[in-house]
This record gives sequence, structure tokens and C-alpha cells, in this order.
Amino acid sequence: MSAGHTADVLARAALSRLLEPSDTVGLALAALVGPADALRIATGDVSAGREISAELREHLGLQGARRDPLAEGLERWRPRRADLAPVRDLDTLGRLGGRLVVPGTEEWPSALDDLRATAPLCLWVRGRHRIPGINRLAAVVGSRDSTAYGAAVTAELASGMVTRGYGVVSGGAYGIDAQAHRAALAGSAGGPPPPTIAVLANGVDRYYPAGNEELLRAVAERGILVSEMPPGSSPTRWRFLQRNRLIAALSAVTVVVEARWRSGALNTAHHAAGLGRPVGAVPGPVHSANSAGCHRLLRDGTAVCVTDAPEIAELAGPPSAGGDADRAKESASPSRDHDGLLVPDLLVLDGLPVRASTSVDKLATVAGLSVRDVIAGLTRLELAGLAARTGEGWRRQRA
Amino acid sequence: MSAGHTADVLARAALSRLLEPSDTVGLALAALVGPADALRIATGDVSAGREISAELREHLGLQGARRDPLAEGLERWRPRRADLAPVRDLDTLGRLGGRLVVPGTEEWPSALDDLRATAPLCLWVRGRHRIPGINRLAAVVGSRDSTAYGAAVTAELASGMVTRGYGVVSGGAYGIDAQAHRAALAGSAGGPPPPTIAVLANGVDRYYPAGNEELLRAVAERGILVSEMPPGSSPTRWRFLQRNRLIAALSAVTVVVEARWRSGALNTAHHAAGLGRPVGAVPGPVHSANSAGCHRLLRDGTAVCVTDAPEIAELAGPPSAGGDADRAKESASPSRDHDGLLVPDLLVLDGLPVRASTSVDKLATVAGLSVRDVIAGLTRLELAGLAARTGEGWRRQRA
Repeated sequence: MSAGHTADVLARAALSRLLEPSDTVGLALAALVGPADALRIATGDVSAGREISAELREHLGLQGARRDPLAEGLERWRPRRADLAPVRDLDTLGRLGGRLVVPGTEEWPSALDDLRATAPLCLWVRGRHRIPGINRLAAVVGSRDSTAYGAAVTAELASGMVTRGYGVVSGGAYGIDAQAHRAALAGSAGGPPPPTIAVLANGVDRYYPAGNEELLRAVAERGILVSEMPPGSSPTRWRFLQRNRLIAALSAVTVVVEARWRSGALNTAHHAAGLGRPVGAVPGPVHSANSAGCHRLLRDGTAVCVTDAPEIAELAGPPSAGGDADRAKESASPSRDHDGLLVPDLLVLDGLPVRASTSVDKLATVAGLSVRDVIAGLTRLELAGLAARTGEGWRRQRA
Repeated sequence: MSAGHTADVLARAALSRLLEPSDTVGLALAALVGPADALRIATGDVSAGREISAELREHLGLQGARRDPLAEGLERWRPRRADLAPVRDLDTLGRLGGRLVVPGTEEWPSALDDLRATAPLCLWVRGRHRIPGINRLAAVVGSRDSTAYGAAVTAELASGMVTRGYGVVSGGAYGIDAQAHRAALAGSAGGPPPPTIAVLANGVDRYYPAGNEELLRAVAERGILVSEMPPGSSPTRWRFLQRNRLIAALSAVTVVVEARWRSGALNTAHHAAGLGRPVGAVPGPVHSANSAGCHRLLRDGTAVCVTDAPEIAELAGPPSAGGDADRAKESASPSRDHDGLLVPDLLVLDGLPVRASTSVDKLATVAGLSVRDVIAGLTRLELAGLAARTGEGWRRQRA
């Protein structure tokens, strides 16, 4: 224990290096006995471990199985024991102006608890903003090899979400992710809330991929960098996949802008759906391989079709924000002459010539209505400015 | 009665001129007393009418209302009485090689009975093919002002459906409809089934719109023209909207390729959804106003996202055809090294360098696995051709 770190913080920092993300045995152990004792057991304190083995099996639902999850875990964790240096890791983080965010503190995003057995032990965090609550975060993710279309739509959506007071969560990768972070930073007046959060599969002291270094530095400066891996950690495929669950869990909604038929972004979408979070997918041309994954999500019902920021905000809730998109579109769409007309009036309107005049009797025949209905309809249409009397009868008028 | 026409056929022909489509009072009358008596009553045979008035109110659920639907109907129908000439209309149809298709005959599409109170009394039909059953018909509809994208997708979908043995139903309008008919004709070897059916809002003796005359002549020649309106009838907005219900009712699935936020094609989609028929919508660029209606259908859950003909066929059923699209895509998509790997093997694979070699111990640390798991994983990866032994240890191999 050192530099004012509590045993809990030090243990979580150490365990985050010992365990791969979502190591359910290690996480169950920490849940059962607390991180400090879990660390003691995981690093070979046999006396404490013996008692917990049966409890752990039960916790993991492995009562009947012949496996001994703790023994397997100990074997799995042994090679890394020598690497544990939580104080050094916390110091490294501190030099970068970062902090370890742990459960039970005010900044801990309670939304992560929805991950239950795979909730992370801690978050290594850089950035001057606090992590906002789930209601103010929207994930915008997609494929690395985005198209010009995908980039343009991502920029619109991310900047639109920032304008609406949401932080944009993404994965710091090339393509859609980078564009989402970039547009969020560009669209922000400086927060709070932070315009964007990059959730990394590597330590927050590293900028990966290298081509995004400048962008990720800007996110660290003006937004937030988050990882469950300690400083110095490299990204691996497993960590990318597990990182995706954090993006999904932190955000009120996850939107996939472009994704191929198989894409990591679909993994994020399925994590979100598994958590009961709404998922949006942006449609695109059917010939674009980069939209095939989005269309797949729409087809299988995982995602809702979203085309602009108001629709994403609607998915994110709160419900009071609902329907804005529809209303805006309705009002942007020009109203038409026949909007709101009764059927008989529509029939009369259809029968009215634009240039010549016609008689009530002729209208009755053409429209298939009684003379009385035609006269009543003409009266209503005249009031609406759609029909006009002429010397010879009636003709149509444009509203 | 004349030229071998039954009283039923003559009465239905006459009523189809007297009544606008979906005139629920006239249709209820025909349902209650049969078309021949309904025609007598509707044209003013008072003795027959008096008795039926109460029954009709009950049939229409208007027992408590002060309205007299029959009296209103009689007033509405009176102006057209003088125009009734069913023998002439049937002769006109006959000269065009057409036929009146009525319920109770073999060609009557029983799918139309799903329209219940608004099922048409008859269909005026041209074309040498019989109208196929619903299982072999798919509607492809969309906006008149289609884009190049919409036209290209329509052509692919329509021709793909014809290849799969479906007839393509559409409305004969400019834009998507015309493209659907055209591609269906081009993709057909001559049938049966007929490649395409145009359901018109006007009489089948007329080619509307004028710019589609050549196309509609080709449909009459090699496909089928259908209308519930008698020869000589003009299209009106009401008839267009009602025509849409026939397109939806005839077809196992209705697909909207392009539609603006407000579009007649959405009306067809809602008719189909109201009948419990599956609806497909083709996604497009979010900036395209011509895809806004499709995205609206996707968003509100009316439609399923469809991007190719196999997906439409899947919606149309039969279920045995299901899943082809997914399977085709899966097999078209290149498999990847990590497909089907266990999690520990994936962790090992991630830790294996491609160029240099590494040791089991180092792999255990990097992957966060026990030495035993690493060895087991390496053995499996070696068998899969993904890992190779070197003089110094192990390295990755591309499958």
C-alpha cells in the first residue's frame, strides 16, 4: 500500500493486470471475498484459497462438474504474478493526470454493473472530465475501412449528438470510430459533458493505432480515455472484443454506422442488445459491403433503423425527447392539398378540373357521390380554398 | 343477360361501374343478397330495398346510428345509373382478349378474400396467363421519381424474383413500378408463371400514364393487366389508393424499393401490413429523400430490411426456402483464422508472433493462461495449421 491508495484500489489495479478482461473465475473470486483477499488468493496464498474453492464452484454454477475453477485459475494467473506492480501502474497513470475509477466511488459508472459477472474491477481513466451517467452517453461505432458515405454520416451523427448534450463513446479505431471522436471534439464548446470517450483495448498510456495518436491525445485532453487494462498493456483480439462490452454498457444507445457482414462493430451491437440497451443501425446502399452488417442488424431485429441524431436521441431517451425527429420531418415536408380531407371531399377534389369548369351533376357522376354529398364537399373545399365557383360551375383551385 | 354471361357476371360488371372501389355499403349489399339483387336494389328497385335496409345497418354495425346507409348509397349511386352497360363493357374487354374474373371461379385469387368487407366484386383482366396464387407473387413498388440507385436495385430485385419463379406485381406507374415491370419482363423466358402483373387504377383498355403505354402493352402481351374498374374508367386519387390494396392483397410479400417520407408506396405497405402480409423495405443512403419513406417503414416496424431477391423470397415463404440468403452470404464471406476457436486458443493465437518465435512461458504471461492451457492451445492451433514449432519455440502460421 502506498501514496494514499487504499487496499481496495491497489488490489483492483493489481487484479486488472493479473486477469484478462471477463475472467469469470477471477471476477467471481473478487465478488465473493473482495478484491484484496481475491488478490491474496489469486497470487498463491493457499491458506485463504482452500476454504473458498467450494464456494466459488457453487457461485459459478459448477457444483456437479469435476473441474476445479480455482485451481485452473491459479495455474492461469501464475505466469503473471511476477509482473504485478500496482503502485508503479498507478504512478504511471498519475503522471498522465489520470485516475483509477473503482466501484463504490462517485464517478463509477453504475451502468457497468449491468454487466454482472463480467463487470470490470476498475477503469483506468484519463481526462479532466468525469465520466457522465449513461443517460448522457451514446456509442457511435463502425468498421475500420469506412467509406466516404460512412465518414460523412458519422460526422453528422456525432456532432448532432454532442449538440444535444450527449458524449460520444467509441473505440478509438480507424474509420468510423476515429471520425466519431473527431466530429464530437469539433462539435463541442468544451463541455461538460465531455464530448467524447474513447474506450481502449490497451493501456491509456498508449496510443493505438499509431495513426490515431494525435486524435487520441486530443481525446485525452478534451474528452476521456478509458481502459480496464493497466498502463503498458497491449491490445489483443480478446481485449478488443471485451472492450466492446464496455462501450455498450457505458452508453444509453449503441449506433453502428457502417459494418461489414462480419465486423467487430456487430459484436458491440450484440453486447448492447444483450444488456437490453437500444441499438441503432444506419442504413446504406444495398451494394455497399460496408453497410451489409448494418442491414444484417436491421433484418435480424437487433437494431432499429436510424438516419439522424434526433432519432438516436429518441432511442437513448428520456422518453420526453421522443418523436422530435418525426415532427421535424413532418413539418419539413410540404403539406398537400388533400391532407386531412374526408373521403367524399377527396373524391370531389379528384373530379374537379383545374382549367375548365364542371357542374355538380357531372361531379356526382364522376365522383360516384350523391348530389347532396357533392354540394357539401364543394362547400368544404371552397372553405379550404381548394375549389372555386365560376360562372359555369366549379373548378379546382390550388391552396 | 347476353353473350353467355351469367347474371352474376353481368351484375358484378355493372356494380363495378356503379360503385367506387371499397364502397362498403354497396359491397355489403352484394354480400347480403348477392350481386344480382344488389344491382336491382342499388339501381332503384324499391320493393327489394325496403326489406334489406335494417339488415344492412346491422351488417355494417350501424344499428344504433341515425344514418340510413342504404338511402345514402342510393343517393350516391343514382347519378351513375344511366351509365351502366355491362354487356358493352364485357364486349370491350373481350375485344382486347380479356376476361372478367369473379369469385367462385377457378382463377379468382382467393387471397383477395382476405380484404373481407373491401374485397373487390370482380377483376377486369387482360393477358394470356392465369393469375397465379399468392405464393408465387411478390409486389415491388416505389416512388414515381426514382433515383438511379432505386432503378438499379429494382431491376436486380425484380429480375431475381422472376428467376426464382415469382411474378412481380406493381402499379404500372413511372419510376420504380415501371422498372419492376420492365426488369421482370426482361428476366423472363415467357412463363408461366407470368413475369409481371400491373394492377391499374383505370380500366385495362387504357394505358396510363401515357409514357408507359409501350411498357403496359408489353405487360398485357406477356404478363397480366388487372383492374377492378371497368373499361373506360379514368384513374383518380381514390382509385390509386384503393388499387394499392389489391397489389398488397394479391402478393405474398410487398417490397418498397424507394419512397419519400410521404408516398403512395407507403400506403401499399400499410395495406400489406394490415393484411398480415410481410413487408420489405430496401434501405438506401440516409441523405436520399427517396429512401426516407423506406427508412420510416423500417423504423416503425412495418417493414423488414431487404437487400436482395433471396431475402424477399425468404419473406414470401414457403419456410423451406428460408435462410438461403444468410447461408449464401456466409459462404461468400471469407472465413477467418479465428473462426470457431475456443477462447483460450484465441488468447494463445493473439500472443503468437508472426515473424519471431516465442516460448510457452512467455505465451502464458502474454495470454494470461496457465502453461498447461498454453500447451493444449498450441497443440490445437498446430493441428489447425495456425501455429508452428520453430527451433526456439513457437510462431504463428497463416492457415
